[in-house]
Amino acid sequence: MTDQTKFLLSESDIPKTWYNIQADLPVPAPPPLHPGTGQPIGPDDLAPLFPMDLIMQEVSQERDIDIPEPVRDVYRQWRPTPLYRAHRLEKALDTPAKIYYKYEGVSPSGSHKPNTAVPQAFYNKAAGIKRLSTETGAGQWGSSLSYAGALFDLEVQVFMVKVSFQQKPYRKAMMETYGGTCIASPSELTAAGRAILEKNPDSTGSLGIAISEAVEVAAQNDDTKYALGSVLNHVLMHQTIVGMEAMRQMEMAGDYPDVIVACTGGGSNFAGIAFPFLGAKLRGGNDVRIVAVEPAACPSLTRGKFAYDFGDTAQMTPLVKMHTLGAQFVPSGFHAGGLRYHGMAPLVSHVQDLGLIEAHALDQLECFEAGVLFGRTESIIPAPEATHAVRGAIKEALRCKEEGKSETILFNLCGHGHFDMQAYIDYFEGKLNNQTYDESELAMALAGLPSVANG
Amino acid sequence: MTDQTKFLLSESDIPKTWYNIQADLPVPAPPPLHPGTGQPIGPDDLAPLFPMDLIMQEVSQERDIDIPEPVRDVYRQWRPTPLYRAHRLEKALDTPAKIYYKYEGVSPSGSHKPNTAVPQAFYNKAAGIKRLSTETGAGQWGSSLSYAGALFDLEVQVFMVKVSFQQKPYRKAMMETYGGTCIASPSELTAAGRAILEKNPDSTGSLGIAISEAVEVAAQNDDTKYALGSVLNHVLMHQTIVGMEAMRQMEMAGDYPDVIVACTGGGSNFAGIAFPFLGAKLRGGNDVRIVAVEPAACPSLTRGKFAYDFGDTAQMTPLVKMHTLGAQFVPSGFHAGGLRYHGMAPLVSHVQDLGLIEAHALDQLECFEAGVLFGRTESIIPAPEATHAVRGAIKEALRCKEEGKSETILFNLCGHGHFDMQAYIDYFEGKLNNQTYDESELAMALAGLPSVANG
Repeated sequence: MTDQTKFLLSESDIPKTWYNIQADLPVPAPPPLHPGTGQPIGPDDLAPLFPMDLIMQEVSQERDIDIPEPVRDVYRQWRPTPLYRAHRLEKALDTPAKIYYKYEGVSPSGSHKPNTAVPQAFYNKAAGIKRLSTETGAGQWGSSLSYAGALFDLEVQVFMVKVSFQQKPYRKAMMETYGGTCIASPSELTAAGRAILEKNPDSTGSLGIAISEAVEVAAQNDDTKYALGSVLNHVLMHQTIVGMEAMRQMEMAGDYPDVIVACTGGGSNFAGIAFPFLGAKLRGGNDVRIVAVEPAACPSLTRGKFAYDFGDTAQMTPLVKMHTLGAQFVPSGFHAGGLRYHGMAPLVSHVQDLGLIEAHALDQLECFEAGVLFGRTESIIPAPEATHAVRGAIKEALRCKEEGKSETILFNLCGHGHFDMQAYIDYFEGKLNNQTYDESELAMALAGLPSVANG
Repeated sequence: MTDQTKFLLSESDIPKTWYNIQADLPVPAPPPLHPGTGQPIGPDDLAPLFPMDLIMQEVSQERDIDIPEPVRDVYRQWRPTPLYRAHRLEKALDTPAKIYYKYEGVSPSGSHKPNTAVPQAFYNKAAGIKRLSTETGAGQWGSSLSYAGALFDLEVQVFMVKVSFQQKPYRKAMMETYGGTCIASPSELTAAGRAILEKNPDSTGSLGIAISEAVEVAAQNDDTKYALGSVLNHVLMHQTIVGMEAMRQMEMAGDYPDVIVACTGGGSNFAGIAFPFLGAKLRGGNDVRIVAVEPAACPSLTRGKFAYDFGDTAQMTPLVKMHTLGAQFVPSGFHAGGLRYHGMAPLVSHVQDLGLIEAHALDQLECFEAGVLFGRTESIIPAPEATHAVRGAIKEALRCKEEGKSETILFNLCGHGHFDMQAYIDYFEGKLNNQTYDESELAMALAGLPSVANG
């Protein structure tokens, strides 16, 4: 088996259920709180934003949640995704480690995002909803939801962080090709957007602001619900299809990971590959190290505070307990736009707090260097977000070399970089540097955490 | 079976041989001629440009040519490619026709081009070559050869048509990420380039000029050979892996095409899907209509002359008999850059001359309209070249609707449009029109056909 490079499952192997890690946690995750009262919120509090099926998934403690057949039917177009053994990368690194990667870039929009966009569109359509509103940073999520909207005949309105809107016209074009509408955020369409523009007409936006705008549109229109591309429990759960497939593919390879590496922005890509393995470990299965890699310029897991915070800038969302840099924290303009979020998924934050995972922060330049090496050896050009996972896996492989250990490394290559070639151009031209953040700005943002929930 | 959407072969089903249609032709194709003498050329005449293994494939009359194991090993990364039934497109068209498409965009560079880039790099490496020179229009071929060069440790030098070089920086970045070198053509690096620049310093280049430059570099350097991404017999043969897989997948679907549709630039994508089916028909198998679709602005098959002509502008190549608009014909700047070539593969031209295939010319706007419909229904955004095949298939499906016939249509979706989103932006903004050509310029270019070979 050692020479085999690709491990493919058949269509009938597409998992029939998603995996809900809440069933296996040694300590339950802290509940979301109402920002006014500081009391736990119930399903009804979320009803203006989400259809009840998704709210029930958000709070479910069941281990296995059925994937509806129409969702599996859509998944079939590109799932199961391939798992590859990176023989050529191993050779280039001269490492005794075995490196495997799960490749999610084969989806129509080029990343793991459709894994949750499709069920979110399905459940909203089933609930009679006409329109979805959402935010997007780099554009991966906005194009994925637009794609899913086209399939289920839903209007999709995407608030795109203005700086990305201006820098990435091709992502906007992709949304429009799928029939979605893409609006630069902050916009004049919402009170949240107008408030920001009044204070700062030149605001280039942030994910936190775009979330405020999208939430406001959903809250104020009965036919419209809100869709989020990461962070929430149900979103992470939809992504577990990645790890569940990977478990079976590692079995095909006759192997099991010693280390799993994934990049973390909101946390769904990480949870997608890691949680099924972590759950197996929690139920007494094989041990495995799980490594989250994040950008040094937006280090919520390694430098944030584990505290209750808002998910958005205008403080319209419930409070969730997470590793956060503070909802007012505005990350610098590094290229991995999908990792530019002030917070981290509550479930990822929780397992980090429980000591079940490790987290490392990586610099931009070392990640692009890894992306180029990966392109030249494994032939897939990774998205800037995914280069973090590549670099993380390479670090583990080089450690194995130093220690003379033949460990098995598995990482999630969450998307291709076809829409991010400007970043590679900038890298080749020496225009990129190692972005960081201002310590005093971080301190200020953390000082602004809501007191109602943080004692 | 009718509800199934995806037809997947297993890795062991990757064909072990390519199919050479020369073995089944009722009349042999006219030989290439020496431009000086007008006499047929032999293998030795091609030796400065190609390694002998490829020259032998070029002239072989054997039906089945072994695919070397190292090439199959690389193919495994993305082959066999999926065959899809376009249920959602059929529904949108309300047609009784069944539409299938083979999807080649899953390759690392996003098109069918690696099918030949990989074996070309393999055979050159085996012959001790250090460097490959080539030309590229839209950049699909240049990035595919750069990708293959990285795998086999070959330098790759790509002459990219200057107008595309300026318009498509991301394709250049992709070549560089794979380690290739990309030069705007016409360039100062070659006598052919300098001659053009002397006459016209503002020349934006053409595929014919870029071929001249690449051929010159190969002819003058012992360690360098030339690689072509289409037109030649061996290139078309490498692409037949597409049609051979599709034949088995149609069998899995329990179906057989009544019509096959593919777009034609140099002809390799078309031949790739069509020749295995055409060969089966020529050997007494099922009947099938084969439809080549080309851009109305560069209509070599429908408006060109079947005559001996040069493959390049500087008249450095042998003469080949093909449907040609004349080597001096410069197509207008429509977006399907991969279809902007003055000639057509000799083998495709020959079967057209024998009446074995049909050809239709399509306008730019109707093709983009089809591309958007395809994106919204089948979720894949087609490359501008591929939109021609989509429109061609839709035309057949609408004819079936009119005639009340449930025919089976198969087309080749040769690549995704991730690097061509500017074209979609221009389309949405109403900036595109139906490009055409100047009749008097065409007449002049045709008047310039070499007399030595055309009596």
